[in-house]
Amino acid sequence: MNDPHRSTPSGRTRARGLGLAVEGTPGPWNAITDVPGVAVGYTTLIEGCGPLVVGKGPVRTGVTAILPRPVEEVQTPVFAGFHSFNGNGELTGTHYIAEAGKFALPVTLTNTHSCGLARDATIRWAVRHFSGRFDEDFALPVAAETYDGFLNDINGFHLREEHVFAAIDGAVAGPVEEGSVGGGTGMKCFGFKAGSGTASRLVTHGGQGYTVGAFVQANFGARGDMTVLGHRIGGAFDDLPMRRETPEKDLSSIIAVLATDAPFLPHQLRRIAQRATVGVARMGGFGRHGSGDIFLAFSTANRAIMGGADAALLAATWVPDEQIDPFFEAAAQAVEEAILNAIVANADMEGRDGNFVPAIPHERLRKVVGVAG
Amino acid sequence: MNDPHRSTPSGRTRARGLGLAVEGTPGPWNAITDVPGVAVGYTTLIEGCGPLVVGKGPVRTGVTAILPRPVEEVQTPVFAGFHSFNGNGELTGTHYIAEAGKFALPVTLTNTHSCGLARDATIRWAVRHFSGRFDEDFALPVAAETYDGFLNDINGFHLREEHVFAAIDGAVAGPVEEGSVGGGTGMKCFGFKAGSGTASRLVTHGGQGYTVGAFVQANFGARGDMTVLGHRIGGAFDDLPMRRETPEKDLSSIIAVLATDAPFLPHQLRRIAQRATVGVARMGGFGRHGSGDIFLAFSTANRAIMGGADAALLAATWVPDEQIDPFFEAAAQAVEEAILNAIVANADMEGRDGNFVPAIPHERLRKVVGVAG
Amino acid sequence: MNDPHRSTPSGRTRARGLGLAVEGTPGPWNAITDVPGVAVGYTTLIEGCGPLVVGKGPVRTGVTAILPRPVEEVQTPVFAGFHSFNGNGELTGTHYIAEAGKFALPVTLTNTHSCGLARDATIRWAVRHFSGRFDEDFALPVAAETYDGFLNDINGFHLREEHVFAAIDGAVAGPVEEGSVGGGTGMKCFGFKAGSGTASRLVTHGGQGYTVGAFVQANFGARGDMTVLGHRIGGAFDDLPMRRETPEKDLSSIIAVLATDAPFLPHQLRRIAQRATVGVARMGGFGRHGSGDIFLAFSTANRAIMGGADAALLAATWVPDEQIDPFFEAAAQAVEEAILNAIVANADMEGRDGNFVPAIPHERLRKVVGVAG
Amino acid sequence: MNDPHRSTPSGRTRARGLGLAVEGTPGPWNAITDVPGVAVGYTTLIEGCGPLVVGKGPVRTGVTAILPRPVEEVQTPVFAGFHSFNGNGELTGTHYIAEAGKFALPVTLTNTHSCGLARDATIRWAVRHFSGRFDEDFALPVAAETYDGFLNDINGFHLREEHVFAAIDGAVAGPVEEGSVGGGTGMKCFGFKAGSGTASRLVTHGGQGYTVGAFVQANFGARGDMTVLGHRIGGAFDDLPMRRETPEKDLSSIIAVLATDAPFLPHQLRRIAQRATVGVARMGGFGRHGSGDIFLAFSTANRAIMGGADAALLAATWVPDEQIDPFFEAAAQAVEEAILNAIVANADMEGRDGNFVPAIPHERLRKVVGVAG
Repeated sequence: MNDPHRSTPSGRTRARGLGLAVEGTPGPWNAITDVPGVAVGYTTLIEGCGPLVVGKGPVRTGVTAILPRPVEEVQTPVFAGFHSFNGNGELTGTHYIAEAGKFALPVTLTNTHSCGLARDATIRWAVRHFSGRFDEDFALPVAAETYDGFLNDINGFHLREEHVFAAIDGAVAGPVEEGSVGGGTGMKCFGFKAGSGTASRLVTHGGQGYTVGAFVQANFGARGDMTVLGHRIGGAFDDLPMRRETPEKDLSSIIAVLATDAPFLPHQLRRIAQRATVGVARMGGFGRHGSGDIFLAFSTANRAIMGGADAALLAATWVPDEQIDPFFEAAAQAVEEAILNAIVANADMEGRDGNFVPAIPHERLRKVVGVAG
Repeated sequence: MNDPHRSTPSGRTRARGLGLAVEGTPGPWNAITDVPGVAVGYTTLIEGCGPLVVGKGPVRTGVTAILPRPVEEVQTPVFAGFHSFNGNGELTGTHYIAEAGKFALPVTLTNTHSCGLARDATIRWAVRHFSGRFDEDFALPVAAETYDGFLNDINGFHLREEHVFAAIDGAVAGPVEEGSVGGGTGMKCFGFKAGSGTASRLVTHGGQGYTVGAFVQANFGARGDMTVLGHRIGGAFDDLPMRRETPEKDLSSIIAVLATDAPFLPHQLRRIAQRATVGVARMGGFGRHGSGDIFLAFSTANRAIMGGADAALLAATWVPDEQIDPFFEAAAQAVEEAILNAIVANADMEGRDGNFVPAIPHERLRKVVGVAG
Repeated sequence: MNDPHRSTPSGRTRARGLGLAVEGTPGPWNAITDVPGVAVGYTTLIEGCGPLVVGKGPVRTGVTAILPRPVEEVQTPVFAGFHSFNGNGELTGTHYIAEAGKFALPVTLTNTHSCGLARDATIRWAVRHFSGRFDEDFALPVAAETYDGFLNDINGFHLREEHVFAAIDGAVAGPVEEGSVGGGTGMKCFGFKAGSGTASRLVTHGGQGYTVGAFVQANFGARGDMTVLGHRIGGAFDDLPMRRETPEKDLSSIIAVLATDAPFLPHQLRRIAQRATVGVARMGGFGRHGSGDIFLAFSTANRAIMGGADAALLAATWVPDEQIDPFFEAAAQAVEEAILNAIVANADMEGRDGNFVPAIPHERLRKVVGVAG
Repeated sequence: MNDPHRSTPSGRTRARGLGLAVEGTPGPWNAITDVPGVAVGYTTLIEGCGPLVVGKGPVRTGVTAILPRPVEEVQTPVFAGFHSFNGNGELTGTHYIAEAGKFALPVTLTNTHSCGLARDATIRWAVRHFSGRFDEDFALPVAAETYDGFLNDINGFHLREEHVFAAIDGAVAGPVEEGSVGGGTGMKCFGFKAGSGTASRLVTHGGQGYTVGAFVQANFGARGDMTVLGHRIGGAFDDLPMRRETPEKDLSSIIAVLATDAPFLPHQLRRIAQRATVGVARMGGFGRHGSGDIFLAFSTANRAIMGGADAALLAATWVPDEQIDPFFEAAAQAVEEAILNAIVANADMEGRDGNFVPAIPHERLRKVVGVAG
């Protein structure tokens, strides 16, 4: 079996496979699934090529499901917080998170025009999955999006409910595929093919080990912005532009989901979500206007009480704010490396109208960053 | 023809028809459509009765479309702001409004579990309606919800795309139907049948007449909270309870949409949205935990520049903050009266499992408020 | 001894002394000090009369100190949240409250131009009071203000550090004076003399009794806005205008401080603070532009852990969000009654340049509200 | 005369003097004063050495005044916005900025415990300076702070009103001194002496030249965080630690003030302020818990209308959001370089109790960043 730090389950090279490692110590899978109980599932839709015919294709899209708890416990809320670095995007459920500091059910990530479908389908999945145990309830799920219309027939609305069900039902713990899969299928970063990426960091606190995991749907940045491990490298790839057969709107975004098993209160999770900004900034991002850079953080801890709205008083444990810095660093590092993975673990893709996004060439990347042998 | 201040197009009595008038001067229709260019459309779905069979019914739901501009201009954004009084609900598009101070396309209001569908369907409506003039664009529409699961088979997901298209295509200026129509079909307030309501206020500013219009999907409050024109009256109707055959979750909400033709900047529209809180509070609401009380305000002014992202500099006109108070009062008054209209212009409704919500009896209402002859 | 619900320690009549009672059950003192450990102190500065000479007077100002914990524990933070209904004012310390959900040290309330002095003086008070136990620490105290320049030589900066020390050192539990005392000395509401007011509500939760207390520095609203127990009564006092010898700027405000001994997390205290809006709205306020309507809420519970930043994990108890409604109601009611008390427990005041603000006449108030015998 | 890009007025070497240049094109002074009308003034207080005697010293503090408009126009508001990256600090005036999108009067920066004094003194300065033209007005000035208690007798409250007046009255356009001056006197970054720094960027937009200027009071970050132009270099200076004779609290912060002459609306200036996060992140910051990282942005444009609250309608010009990216980049770059300047243009400082903070050694810095000859 290959080293999960160096390659994805399908064998794609990850950043560490190229010798590119952001600071900090990853967990076993270097993935959001290093947080116990968190699972990730994908439905990837790739079909057709050639000229765009709205409703026919080509299709380059999909949906990702992140389960904050094991499926049978996914109705039990997690404490959560969010931050918008640049709000030119959608992440539903945030009015409720702002108010009550929690959410339940799977988080879904997809394209901009199917984000509502992913939201409602998550409810319908719960209605079916929990049948008798759900039908009096209501739900305000978290669904987010980035724009894949440069490669995908986004106005063809190819994502269907069944695809969302399949992503949720297919979610697994363990190593996580990256690149052009799930909601990340049609995405790009810095003019290179990007999409889904993940990473994790271990934090020892109070003598106990915790994990901070990040998952990104990365679709942001202009070529010139690209920065890897402090090296401003976009300019080293001028011979590898995207091919724009249709005028490209500057519609980019990054959704980051941060998970941890360390106990935090809602106001602290908002702070952790905000640190995704640092990871984005270190990769060269600065929150362009056209970008929906919205970040979510949740904690799987305090599970026993989270369903317990009937008790008169609940008791939640939490890491004191005064000791939160290592978790902040972990969040920033995990997001930075997750973005890098989304770009590295990828391949060229041609989509609608012959629009084309190159993968970043690995050896040249190593060379410009100075890790080549 | 009947007096539009006293009855709805279908002949239902409005609050002023009972002699109940909140302060301020309404526009010709006493409706959000008094703001020039604003139109409202409904699709109402009422079908079946008896025991709940998820997916079959009974159905007591619908969708409301509010067009901020005439349909051919509805891709031109309006300046906007929002406020969450209690965020236990969904109103999509707000990350973008917070960031860019504007939104485009129709606003839709429906039930909690179909809010995503209404959002995506609005994009698909635009793709179709504007075909060649939309397909490179992307959209982050505003869709909101309140919970109708006490009467409606909400987990049956009876709302379909076509219903959203029909609401948008059917939107008209002029007098607006109220009560159990559109997204408001299955809603209740203070244990009385409620749903869709509207009102408007005229404001003279700088020698010119402007309008502030409100539209609410009202579904909030316990019986004891109910306050009409300063009278705490809930207790006067103890003989008229709801019939709860299924345990009722305390899932209530109010979405308020405020429109004006007076020119305001985004930060000012957030302030105007916040004043809906005053209207809700005067009706007796206090933002119960289970309530999604989220308010949107937009201005139809500055139309010429709102599409003009290509000019180097734009010039927006606006009412100085120092002169905004009459608009604040108008917003509070219009929301208060819109809620009252949603309750008055209504009738008894029985829904799923025989659950029953009575309409407020008009004569007794007049009597307890002290306007009876 | 007089009934503390009916009159203040100095013998001024309170709202309940006139038969005017907002809903809900007050604590023993009907004051924020019903929350165990909370104390209130005042320094009142009234000196001179006649024409304004900046730096000389007349002086009609003061400072109020609210101690969230007994003085020896006042370095131990309280969980807290805040809400701005209309931010035309100052309440310092809120960046930290937003970030860390807590604050320490006394809260001070004074006039707009001395708010910074009150803030710094609170630190200096702590430096002195806790000497060796403070000097390595830093502090970000909460200090708030409303504008008294209609009666007071506000630009004379008459408040000095010693006045702040005296208010803090003089803070006591038990009954609380109201009206033109402390920071409220030069304030007015609806064109009537107002200033400091307080009230409390008892809430039984999980078989245990808790208290929600409110303290307001009330200085908002135009005469026509005034609403008492649902009665719009401003117009009944047209013969009793203020005397405006100098042009009056529309500079009004209300600061509300809510305290409770029930355990809440920071995100919940923000919500409770927001409910002060309801109390203000029911008194007729709508957040005029010129008004700084900023609300703070804190919980004295969880004391044992609040100083404990050294433990690896802390455990906080809290009332589940799903059971928070009675506390929301209590907050709204206590704020409404506190405002009413600030107005009722007052007397005419003449200030700078002969500017004059009448007290509301008690018998006529009873009559227009319909409680007169 | 020396090159203002390479050295400060007093002859201290700036980052560009070492060959260290963040991307982008600076204005003539590479300072916030490149924005026409903006002026900066300092009062620096350095006195005594040896053991701390509270109230006696040693004193290592001061105050900085930033005038957003020429002194005679400084009562005319500027449109403004702010962002808190980590709110463990104070920046007054933000409730009003959030509400009305503007502020007036000089901005002051000082130590944590004198921030209130700086705020009030700014009002008193205005009362005196504008005498008859101010006394009916009220003000909510912006005053901010970072913590200098490691070197300074912060609990001695050495800053007095006259120092604030002197900083304001001494404010000048043109080149700006940097390092241990004004409010930055006692500050440190990454374990190196830091304090006041500035930089600017030119942006061409619509054929016209605009400037974005940044001023920072930099006092954040642990040694290991330090990153210069992408190089993580803190570890290269292990032989140059701070000398901690008293236990050092992790009390760090950065205040950034961004100015531009390009016209923006309030919601846009909030966005620009938020981009200071990117500059901080690129220097290695990640918003440690103990840090008050609060950012302000204002635009000097639209001056003619900003005083004009009496007109019925105002017209403001603004750069469309869709063209804002170059200003975002400029803001991030200017903040990054301003921080670097605050560190480079500095010298060793010993303060209270022999606590000592070394200046960064210039040649070694050049070497580790790889620009040494």
